[in-house]
This record gives sequence, C-alpha cells and structure tokens, in this order.
Amino acid sequence: MTGSMFTPQAPLGSIPGPVEPTPSALATLAPLALSDVSLTTGFLGDWQRRSAARSLPYCVGRLDGAGALTNLRRVTGEADGDFENMWFADSDIYKTLEAAAWQLGATPDNAELRTFVDTTAALLAKAQAEDGYLNSYRMLKEPDRRWEALHWSHELYCAGHLIQAAVAAARSGVGAEVVTVARRLADLVVERFSTVDAVDGHPEIETALVELYRVTGHRPYLDQAKRFVDLRGRGLLDGERFGSAYLQDHEPVRDTDSVTGHVVRQLYLLAGVVDVAVETHDETLLAAARRLWDDAFGAKTYVTGAQGSRHRDEAFGDPYELPPDRAYGETCAAIASFHWNWRMLLATGEVRYADEMERALYNVIAGSTALDGEHFFYSNTLHLRSGHDGSHEDAPSGRLPWYSCACCPPNLARLLASLSGYLLTTDHSGLQVHLYAAGDVRTTVDGHDVHVAVRTDYPWDGRVVLTVTTDAAVTLSLRVPRWATEVRLDGDVVEARDWYVQVQRDWSCGATVTLDLPMAPRIIAPHPRIDAVRGCVAVARGPLVYAVEQADLPAGVTLEDVRIDPGAPIAAGRLPDIPVTLTVAGAVETAESDELYPAAARTHTEPLELTAIPYFLWGNRTPGPMRVWIPVTTG
Amino acid sequence: MTGSMFTPQAPLGSIPGPVEPTPSALATLAPLALSDVSLTTGFLGDWQRRSAARSLPYCVGRLDGAGALTNLRRVTGEADGDFENMWFADSDIYKTLEAAAWQLGATPDNAELRTFVDTTAALLAKAQAEDGYLNSYRMLKEPDRRWEALHWSHELYCAGHLIQAAVAAARSGVGAEVVTVARRLADLVVERFSTVDAVDGHPEIETALVELYRVTGHRPYLDQAKRFVDLRGRGLLDGERFGSAYLQDHEPVRDTDSVTGHVVRQLYLLAGVVDVAVETHDETLLAAARRLWDDAFGAKTYVTGAQGSRHRDEAFGDPYELPPDRAYGETCAAIASFHWNWRMLLATGEVRYADEMERALYNVIAGSTALDGEHFFYSNTLHLRSGHDGSHEDAPSGRLPWYSCACCPPNLARLLASLSGYLLTTDHSGLQVHLYAAGDVRTTVDGHDVHVAVRTDYPWDGRVVLTVTTDAAVTLSLRVPRWATEVRLDGDVVEARDWYVQVQRDWSCGATVTLDLPMAPRIIAPHPRIDAVRGCVAVARGPLVYAVEQADLPAGVTLEDVRIDPGAPIAAGRLPDIPVTLTVAGAVETAESDELYPAAARTHTEPLELTAIPYFLWGNRTPGPMRVWIPVTTG
Repeated sequence: MTGSMFTPQAPLGSIPGPVEPTPSALATLAPLALSDVSLTTGFLGDWQRRSAARSLPYCVGRLDGAGALTNLRRVTGEADGDFENMWFADSDIYKTLEAAAWQLGATPDNAELRTFVDTTAALLAKAQAEDGYLNSYRMLKEPDRRWEALHWSHELYCAGHLIQAAVAAARSGVGAEVVTVARRLADLVVERFSTVDAVDGHPEIETALVELYRVTGHRPYLDQAKRFVDLRGRGLLDGERFGSAYLQDHEPVRDTDSVTGHVVRQLYLLAGVVDVAVETHDETLLAAARRLWDDAFGAKTYVTGAQGSRHRDEAFGDPYELPPDRAYGETCAAIASFHWNWRMLLATGEVRYADEMERALYNVIAGSTALDGEHFFYSNTLHLRSGHDGSHEDAPSGRLPWYSCACCPPNLARLLASLSGYLLTTDHSGLQVHLYAAGDVRTTVDGHDVHVAVRTDYPWDGRVVLTVTTDAAVTLSLRVPRWATEVRLDGDVVEARDWYVQVQRDWSCGATVTLDLPMAPRIIAPHPRIDAVRGCVAVARGPLVYAVEQADLPAGVTLEDVRIDPGAPIAAGRLPDIPVTLTVAGAVETAESDELYPAAARTHTEPLELTAIPYFLWGNRTPGPMRVWIPVTTG
Repeated sequence: MTGSMFTPQAPLGSIPGPVEPTPSALATLAPLALSDVSLTTGFLGDWQRRSAARSLPYCVGRLDGAGALTNLRRVTGEADGDFENMWFADSDIYKTLEAAAWQLGATPDNAELRTFVDTTAALLAKAQAEDGYLNSYRMLKEPDRRWEALHWSHELYCAGHLIQAAVAAARSGVGAEVVTVARRLADLVVERFSTVDAVDGHPEIETALVELYRVTGHRPYLDQAKRFVDLRGRGLLDGERFGSAYLQDHEPVRDTDSVTGHVVRQLYLLAGVVDVAVETHDETLLAAARRLWDDAFGAKTYVTGAQGSRHRDEAFGDPYELPPDRAYGETCAAIASFHWNWRMLLATGEVRYADEMERALYNVIAGSTALDGEHFFYSNTLHLRSGHDGSHEDAPSGRLPWYSCACCPPNLARLLASLSGYLLTTDHSGLQVHLYAAGDVRTTVDGHDVHVAVRTDYPWDGRVVLTVTTDAAVTLSLRVPRWATEVRLDGDVVEARDWYVQVQRDWSCGATVTLDLPMAPRIIAPHPRIDAVRGCVAVARGPLVYAVEQADLPAGVTLEDVRIDPGAPIAAGRLPDIPVTLTVAGAVETAESDELYPAAARTHTEPLELTAIPYFLWGNRTPGPMRVWIPVTTG
C-alpha cells in the first residue's frame, strides 16, 4: 500500500475488468481480473444476478422497436421514418452493449445476449461510414454538420461509449466486430482532433481513449485523451444556456479547485483526468483530481453518496448546498462517482475512495432500481414531500419504467455486469478487500496463486469470514469503513479505524480470518453548514442509510410532522422483504397555527415510535412520502 | 366594506389607474384614480421619483440601439440584420410604453418620455400588418406561422402587454395611436380566437382584454378573456419540456386548488381570472381564486413575499418547499402577486390581500432594484452563500445592469409609475388606506370631495398622521397589518389586529387622526414544515424583513457560521444610507471537524454581536454573502 509503482500480472486467459492501468502506470494498487471474482448468494451477488436476469434484458428490449436501434437501421436503410429519441441515444446502445459484453464474459452461453451483441455489432459495422464516422443523429439529420457544435452534439461522447463497449468486448473476448468498428471511429477521432483545438461538451471520450490505449497499446489514443484533458477549460465551447462552468470549460483542470456544473460531465471528465494522469505520470493532474475530490466529498455530496444539488442544470451546487427534497442525485452521477473513486483508489491506495464507493453503491445506486429490476430513478431524492407533484419525470413520485433521456438504466446494467471487478485489488505482496461480498476469489499475487473464500451476509450482518489459501506470504488487507467505530479481528478489537487491517498468516493450508464490523444502529449528524437539514439527523446501520416512509406511519400522521429523539436507543427489527428495519422513539409535532410566518412556531407534540427502512428499498411497497433526514424532537 | 356592489364615480378629467372595475362589477372596494394621489417625500414617493428619474429612462435607453425597438424597425424596413433578443422582446417595449404612459399622466411635460411614446407609437403603427397583426419575431422570422405553437410563441402574451400599454395611454390621455394599434390587434385576436379552442402558453392577454373592455365598453373583449380562462386547463397546449402544469393547462381553473408551474404565468392568469370573475359575476371563479390564494400564501410564499422555489422551471414548489438559497422569487412574480392581491382586495375588501401587497412591496420588490435605479435582480434569493458561484445571470452575486430575458426592469417601471393607484380605495361611504405613504389625496366619496393629507416616515417610523377634510360623513378605514401587535389611535390602544381601524369624525373643518403602528423589532419563526429554514429565525421591524450581510461581520467570520439568540433584546441603530439597522446578541459557531456527516456535529462557539439591515438594501454596499434566516444559538 505504498505509493510505488507496481506491475500487475493477470493470469493468461483471464478477463480484465474495466479500468486496467498499464504496467508502467502510476498506480499503488492493481485491479483483479473480472474473472478472478465470482459472487455467490448475498447482497451484491443477488443484485448482480437480478440485473443480469431482469434489467439487462429489459434494456436490450427497450433499445428495439421504436428505440435507439431503429435509428441505426434508418442509417443502413433497413427502417423508415425520422430519427427518434434523444440525439445522443446511440450511447444507450453502446452502454447496453458494454453491459452485454461484460455479462458474456461471466456467462458466455447466454444465447440471447450473444445474439444481441452479434446483430448489433453487424448493424454498427453496416451503419458506419466508409471513413469510420458513426453517429446516427448526425448521419440522418445533419450529415453536413459532422463534429460541429461540439458543446451540444455529443458525437465524441457517443464515440466514447462505443469505445468503452469495444474495450469490454475485447477483454471479454466477445464481439470482435465491435472492436473493429470502435477502432475505426477512434482512428478517425485522432485524425480529426489531433491537430484541431476542440473538446466535446460532454466528457467521456477521454477515459474511453485511455482504456482503448490500454487494450491496444496504441499510443495516439492516449495522446489524444491527454489532448482533450489539456484543452478543456479554455473556453473552446459555446457555453450557451448554462454557461461554460456547466461544461467544465471555464478553467483548465490543473488550475481549478472546485467541482462545478453538470455533475455527470464533471465526474466523467475526472475519470479521464485520473486515467491520463496515471498513464502519463502527471502528478499535477493527479493533484488537481485530489483537490476536486476534497471539494466534492467535503461539501457537495449527499449522505447517500448522491451528487448534484440542482435540477435546473443537473449540477453541483455551492458548498454545503445540499437540499434533500430537491436533491438531483442523478443515477449516472453516482455511477460516475463510483468510477472516479475506483481510479483514485488504484492510483493512491487510500481508503477514503473505497469508503465513498461503498456509500454510493449501497445507497443511491442500490436505490435507483426497483426490486423488480425494471423500474428506475433518474434523479434520487432524499425527501419526497407530502403533497409532492410527481407528474413530471424530472422528479417522479416513484421509479419509472423508462425515461425520455434513458442514460441511467443501461449505465446501471454495465456497472452491475462488471461489479466483481471493483471489489478487491492486489499490490506486489498483498491482496486488498475494499468491498465485502460473499464470493470466491482466485487470483495471483506476485506470481503465486491465491484463493479467498468470502462468506458474509454483509451489509445485513457485520461478520465477514475469509478463508485464504496460498503458498505465498500474502498480506491480506481488510478495509475498515469510516463509520466503523469498533472492529474485531478474530474476536479481538483492532485499532484501524478508517484504514485497512493488515493480516499476515501462514496461508499454506488455508487460514480463516474473521472480521466483525459493528452493526449497531447509529445517528448521523450533518455538518452545521448544511442549512437544508439543520436540526435533523439521519439513522444508519453499517453502510446503509435509513429512511422513514409514510407507509410505516400510523394513519393520520403526516411525514412532515414526524420527529426523532436522537438520544433514544435504536432497535433492529424486520418487515416482509426488508431484512433489517430500525425502530426509535420519536414524536408527531403539529403546528398550532396555519400561519406560515408566526412570531413563534407553537406546536403540539405526541409521542410516536418511528420505523425506518434502508433508503435503497424506499418506494418498493406503496408510493408515498419518504425522508432520510428527520427533524429532532425539541424541548 | 360589505360584499355589496358599488358604483365608483371618478371625477371628470381624472386619470384612472390600472385595474378599474366597471360600475356593474362584483366589487367591494373601488380604486382611487391615479391622479387622486400624489406622493410627497417619503419611502414610496422617493422610490417612485427615483424610478421615474433613473429606471424608466434607463429602460427606454435599453430598448434602443441593439435593443428590442430595432426588431420593429426591421419590420418596417428601417433597420437591417436579423431579429435580436428573446422572441418575446416586443413585450419589453410595451411594458416600458405602459410605464411611460402612466408617468406622463403624472408629469405630462416630460418631453423625452413624450417623444418616446410618440415615436414608438408611430413605429408600431407602421410595423402593424394591414389586418392588425403585430409581432416582430413572427413577422421577421416565421411570417407563415402566425398563432402557431401557442405554448411557446408568446404572441398573445405580447399582444396583452401592448393592450395594457394602450389602456394606460387611454386613461392617461397620451399616445392615442397606441390605443388604435392595440385595438386593431385586439380585434384581430377576437376575430381569430372567438371560434377556435386555443390559449396562450403565457397568460397576460386575459387581464389585458378585460381592462380594454373596461376602457372601451366593447363586450367582445371581455367575452374573449372569459373564453381564454374557460379554455385553460384542457390540455390544449403542448406541455413540451416542463409538462402542462408548468403552463397551468393541466386542470381547469375552477377545479384546481393548488398553484403550480411557472409562477409568473400562474399569477398573471390569476389576475385575469379575478378580472373575468368580477366583470361576469362568476362566484365559482372567484372561489377558485380564493382557494389558490390560500395555497400560494399558506404554503408557497417566502417571508419576503417572493414566490417561486425552483430555478429549473421558474416554478412553485411543493407545499412548504421554500429553500432560501435557491429561492427563485422572480421580480416579475412579485409584481404579479401585487397585481393579483390588489384585484382580490377590490373584490372582497379583505385585509389579508393588502398585507401581502405590503410584504412583497417593501421586501422583494423594493430589493430588486439597486439604489442607483439601474441594476436589478431577476431572481431574488434570501441567502447568498459563502463560496457562491455567481457567474451566471440565473443566480448572480449582485444586481445586474440588464438580463438576456429583460422582463423585470420595465415591469418595475410600470408598477412604480402607477403605484399611487394601489394605496387607497373607496366604497359607498368610506375611504380605506391600505398602504401608508406620505402624500396628498384628493378624491370623492359618494359625490363629496375628500382631501386627506398623510404625513409619515413609514416604514422607518410607525406614526401615520392623517388630516381629513370633507363635508361628508366619511368613514376612514386604516389598515392594521398582521404583524402589528399593539396599535394606537390618537394615543389609545385599539383592538383591530389584522383588520381595519374605522374612524368616523366630523371632518368638516379638517380633523387629524394619528395612527401608531408598533415598530419594535421582532422575531419571525417559520412554520415547522418549512424544512429549509428549520432552527432559524428572521428579524423584522414593521413591514421590513431584515438580513445579515457578510459586510457587517468582523474579519474572519464566515456568514454560514453566524448564529442568533432569539431571546435576546434587539436594538435599533443606523449606518450610512441605512436608516434603521438592528443589533442583537448572537454567536459564531464553527464545526470542530471538516467531516460532512459526523456521528455528532461538535462545534466551537464564540459570542458575536450581530447587525442586520433591511433585506431590500442588501448588496448595495459591497457584494458578498447575505442571509435572511439566521440559525439560532444552540445549548
């Protein structure tokens, strides 16, 4: 876990996951191959299988018919009619394709998925122009405007997602035609942009080109990615309606110390920034990413890991501007945050990045999909008010089957299909476990085979039992989450809060390590500068943030009137489909007057026992109000 | 002040102000003529003169050059180039024209203004199509799309503002050509829309047509206004990006009980709704307006009178969703609220409407213009955060000289030029004073001359001295604001909170009445359902809400860390250009840890004496953070 460089050695025939720094990259940790980890029954494994069984086929189905694929068929002449969906709808295809490629790596005999990949690859190859250009919107609607109005066109954004799909296809060994198509387009991008000062309004091409470089070793891809990062912030884009900060084009990355503008744009850019920094050994760029991380996670992140405080421009707010009811918290932003933190973790080995991955994964990302796997949140609020007007998909009262901007569902599918690649890392002599999940790990550390069997019911239970078998002197590092106050290793309390417990054993005959993370329910208080939740606390247990739903309140009680006693003991219980609920003493506090601005707010208080459920499960029973931050009882 | 119908009798040669119900209208109170009231030195009089001397000429200047007038000159062939500014920029001209007409009514020898009115009227007449159509955007850009895409085109909105200008011109007796142009357009509107089911995406035409009916007696204008009101809420408009509730087209007015969507659209519609209701004796429609008022002012209005909780769609939020930092509070919305409340007051005679006029006038509306009269807020926040990114005109850090959507400055100009018309009313035997301002009133009540001299330094001082002279048995009604806890009449405490003190005297030789409103500084607490300001209070004095500015804090103290002791005495003081400041004990409370979500928010507290200034004056010294709602000291 030092800052030294380290050469990962993946076993032959393995499937590397997303984000695979080259041997010469600036990296503290190396990812395991996707094929090194298989998740068994448990929270993450079950989720991953649900996504594969329900969400991914659902996304594939949504691309067909009147969906995004039809636009490509219009390009090839196989379909009639006018271009449909958002102008960047090609990217929905590419993200689904990426998800399918990762999934086929794990379950290669999924015939339906393979057909989807093969037919889509063939369609893409047929639709691609002779010179490699591919963008169904421009080809159908504005064939003469290629690469124009880049602040808006999303051409390079779509190209980036195609390249990511190709990277997944190359690593998984499926869909070679996708790789061919993507490389032809990538080569055209390099040809076109290596001598022109231009960037795309929506970052994505940067990280994609670095990954393509990692797969192919073709240096011009990396150079072009670096060029896009270097050129950003020089006002090359038309700021149009929301200004250049919306596009992160107001200040060069190396000079800025504040995350701004459209959250997904900002975070995709930062993934690319870290990728370029580690591959080009650019310490200044990495330092900028650290500064921006401090700003993002020190003052602009919700307790659920969501980011984006403004619906207007899907943007970061000012420092500490974190309204729970108007949280934007786009699902794609949370996925982007997960991606960025993983890159920071690989580069630095610092536990804080894994902490934020866990926060986002178990709360905002987990909550964005319904238990049926076929309904989604685009925006992830922390407070659905009584009387909320949910008539618009911008802030619906529950998860919707699809969105006119359908970026999130396929993004979830690609994350879940590649999730096994984000849980553990290795360095020259150790194996690090960042996220706990029941599963089996078969990898190599410093050339030696290592097998780890992980048995746990995390996050419902805090016990993680790891059985390690290897003939090498491997150091096993187990992450101690920031929220964990007392951690036990094989029954003994260990001092390692907010870092890693390091275990060295003789693993040759298999040795078992038992980690106990504290699962006592706890109170979370907001930083006093977060005005929007002053006088409130949240309830949490392990990595899970809890929420109170109207559904669990007695008849006649309105959620807005509910209070919590922050000093009262919190008891665990359960409800159907909710493994662990939390119950705590509270009150119903109703205003004695309807006056909006009285001289004093007199209230009437009645005691109430309050039941909270994991935030990620809200809205799965009956639709209705919900809140994470609960006002505390007064007096 | 009963609900009976009442016939106003304006003296010959007088200038009626805006909103002049016909003798047969359903009305409890009648407005005084604009020419009946002249404001002398004092808060409102000074403001009105500043607007006339600075803001109105400034708006006139802004219309010229590359401004909105050039578009009309392009229509007539007097200018080259492409259409500029917003597609509804004609309305900026019309609002300025309306302001100029009212102003010329008061100061007829203003040669510059008269030239502006005359040349603009001539230009409009020249630009108008043979059949009466007039809209520079459509005429220049899309001549074949007249009255198409009404959800967006603003054609009827612009027509409405032209008609309002014509109404002002007709009543003031200036710019007869404007009246001719407007009537030709109004006749075309009636011809086109009396048989077609259609409404405009942006209400305004409704109230305008009723007013034109009031001026002309031409019944088809009223019928058409009623038709537009009746047809709204039937889904005739394309809801497009923000949905039909944004356009108040989701539900017929008579059925709805919630203000929704774009605030200015909603409130302009409601002004028209009341106008139609009173002229057609439609009690159901008036009842709907009352229900919507209860919703707006019971759960969706800021303590400054601002309305609009969302920047995304300039919209009302859910009930009690009133974030101070992201308050939209558009200036035009506050003006629209003032207009709507005036109509409700005339119809019902209920004091609550005058209370809300006062709240908006002295806080959000007064604050929207800089003391120089040439810088404006479009959006009126209640909390400018430390670290705020004010780079966009959507939420700038201070008042700007102009906006790409320039609706607010000319709207302010027309309000201020007609302000004298909104202060007093008469009924069959009385005179009601709703808003207190130093000035002279010469009017008639039931055919008898009445003269009232009002001497006051309100709102800086609570004493209002009224000398009434008339030979009639006039009842003088003096409004007691909702915030006034102890009111004295000629030195004696009177019981009349939240209503009117009624005074009957022998006025024949002139009699003086002295009203003393309590000017002790006071604390305002928010309704407990307003989550965004939980644990905070505001400070107020009289009608003025106060704010704390970074400018008045000691070096090194950040506004976000400031706390107030809500039980401490509040002392009055003064600063240069700020007649009354308020000082109160408070604290600086800094977090002991940077952690965003700690288990407990431990803080370090130091005492601090806090100075607050009237909200409307914020941002006039140095730019910097400001907040209205101050967190209270804990422990």
